[in-house]
Amino acid sequence: MKVNGIPTRTIRALDDGTAVEIIDQTLLPYRFEKRVLSDWRDCVEAIDVMRVRGAPLIGITGAWAVVLATKENPENAALIKAAEQIQNVRPTAVNLSWAVQRMLAALLPRDPSLRFPAAVKLAEAMTQEDVMLSRAIGDAGYGLIAELYRKLRRPVNILTHCNAGWLATVDYGTALAPIYFAFERGTPVHVWVDETRPRNQGLLTAWELGQQGVPHTIIADNAGGELMQKGAVDMVIVGADRITRRGDVANKIGTYLKALAAKDNEIPFYVAAPSSTIDWKLNDGKREIPIENRSASEVLSLRGIDRSGEVATVQLASPNESAANPAFDVTHNRFITGIITERGVFFAHQPCCSLPGSDCKCRTLRNLR
Amino acid sequence: MKVNGIPTRTIRALDDGTAVEIIDQTLLPYRFEKRVLSDWRDCVEAIDVMRVRGAPLIGITGAWAVVLATKENPENAALIKAAEQIQNVRPTAVNLSWAVQRMLAALLPRDPSLRFPAAVKLAEAMTQEDVMLSRAIGDAGYGLIAELYRKLRRPVNILTHCNAGWLATVDYGTALAPIYFAFERGTPVHVWVDETRPRNQGLLTAWELGQQGVPHTIIADNAGGELMQKGAVDMVIVGADRITRRGDVANKIGTYLKALAAKDNEIPFYVAAPSSTIDWKLNDGKREIPIENRSASEVLSLRGIDRSGEVATVQLASPNESAANPAFDVTHNRFITGIITERGVFFAHQPCCSLPGSDCKCRTLRNLR
Repeated sequence: MKVNGIPTRTIRALDDGTAVEIIDQTLLPYRFEKRVLSDWRDCVEAIDVMRVRGAPLIGITGAWAVVLATKENPENAALIKAAEQIQNVRPTAVNLSWAVQRMLAALLPRDPSLRFPAAVKLAEAMTQEDVMLSRAIGDAGYGLIAELYRKLRRPVNILTHCNAGWLATVDYGTALAPIYFAFERGTPVHVWVDETRPRNQGLLTAWELGQQGVPHTIIADNAGGELMQKGAVDMVIVGADRITRRGDVANKIGTYLKALAAKDNEIPFYVAAPSSTIDWKLNDGKREIPIENRSASEVLSLRGIDRSGEVATVQLASPNESAANPAFDVTHNRFITGIITERGVFFAHQPCCSLPGSDCKCRTLRNLR
Repeated sequence: MKVNGIPTRTIRALDDGTAVEIIDQTLLPYRFEKRVLSDWRDCVEAIDVMRVRGAPLIGITGAWAVVLATKENPENAALIKAAEQIQNVRPTAVNLSWAVQRMLAALLPRDPSLRFPAAVKLAEAMTQEDVMLSRAIGDAGYGLIAELYRKLRRPVNILTHCNAGWLATVDYGTALAPIYFAFERGTPVHVWVDETRPRNQGLLTAWELGQQGVPHTIIADNAGGELMQKGAVDMVIVGADRITRRGDVANKIGTYLKALAAKDNEIPFYVAAPSSTIDWKLNDGKREIPIENRSASEVLSLRGIDRSGEVATVQLASPNESAANPAFDVTHNRFITGIITERGVFFAHQPCCSLPGSDCKCRTLRNLR
């Protein structure tokens, strides 16, 4: 997508794959700055402190981390050890372990001397694939927005939580891809952007929507229910960090609350994610998906621009205060209208025939396996 | 309640009622500073910019504003005009118009020359009454906490939203009064404190709980659902700005989302408020309660302590961004387990006999009228 009018991706290989360039998302929306990573440990750090974030982009960065680990030492023991560290840096998104395992499965059967070029080639392919996945998700989700517009004949109001835009992928995004496609194709949309405390990734969403020119309004996370009650939200689209085989969805903390409100107000609630987000080993999301707890300081302090125009962190509460900071929650499949994937819109537990406006192809997640 | 160990109230008359002293809550939790108001217009300003906030305290401040208006000009036309301006400064809480109307009803039949001393006397009485109401609410709600503790035999985890503590009343609070009573009486409690964006009144709650020594943990507003899902919340107690006769509750934006999550996880959800919060004229809260929309700047900027230890405001998003800021939402009575008032715990629509642990006195709101 565009930054200051220039087409940009969130990650790209430099120097034949011996380094990668990322956007340092910890500086956004205040400063747009790129950063070169040439050691796999830099990739781990970038994932850890969320210079790169969003399940798909974490996966791709993990793949490039394996490339850089292969560059450093392609032997089995070293490679497996590095892969383990890469994979464990963030526990909730399945994409990271999926990407690292895919790299390992392709590399380990090869002679160590041939591993680096093979790693570069596969990571490049996965990067391109991620773009194609986002485009396909955009296409599938666009259909849902267009259908609503045909009914409403006024701009479609879409609420989203966190950032599942192009910044969370290589390009286009997951939850925002359908919105970008609708906007580009002339279907009027307006996006309610949850600020998404504690890390305020909603500000990233607002920033990227603004860069493309998509109308949007920022709201406190608390406001979504009220907006739904007064009819100001026509649909919800969010991303996902992990989906179980029955369709329970782990996503950014607070997603579950919006799903409850959407259900209570009979508003369609969609999750957009590539099918690689489905963890077929898991069934009951609430019991089985590990929820990452992050630092209390993310709750107790906040970054912004101070009076002198500098990026500054302010402490919200006294240092004596303690805070809990679960980073994700799980939404039960019964609250999810459909899952928008690169292969179309799938339904979790519900037979789609019972859904209003369904085309009754009755595809459930099982068909994706 | 105590501030630095010294018993303190949020508002008190000075100089025979020719002025009132308040705590400037816009400076909390960073600075504890009192402020003297000697003109009714200062009271209006204090309510408007939320130097005083919380439905009961807004009401009492409104009563004192009428006192100061009477001091300035006790004649009918001037008094009625001032009362109108006082009453309209914040539209959602019913307590403000209730308090102003109560003052007017007592003053207008009197000779103008006798109005000022009568006004002081009534405002004093209403101030004392508010303390007694909070104490009675605390007693009634304490029973619910004690009952849970007898069952659980471990600290009772209570989630609260916004600030319905002593800072929102003259003393003790509404939602927090039962918690203070439990703590003082040796029933172990732990409070999950929603930060309550955009104005972060949860930080006031954390501050006052900390001043009394009550164990508590701050959380992002998004986190409550996840905590409920994992069994970390035993009950929810919130305040109210207006309650309809059928028991729909307007309270700080985001309350509705927590009520939905409590229902989904079968966690009791209580609203604590004096019976004056019930607006008998209204029935359907969602349709009939006016919701105040506040400034976008409350969403787009935030106050905290900067690196030099000063109170500073940071801009969270670019000035090009727009934000919507509804300040309250309405929770339907079907999500509310009970309403804790000065006259005991009342049930909204549900027959209490069907509630777990109910003592089956089956009191509904109607009994309060």
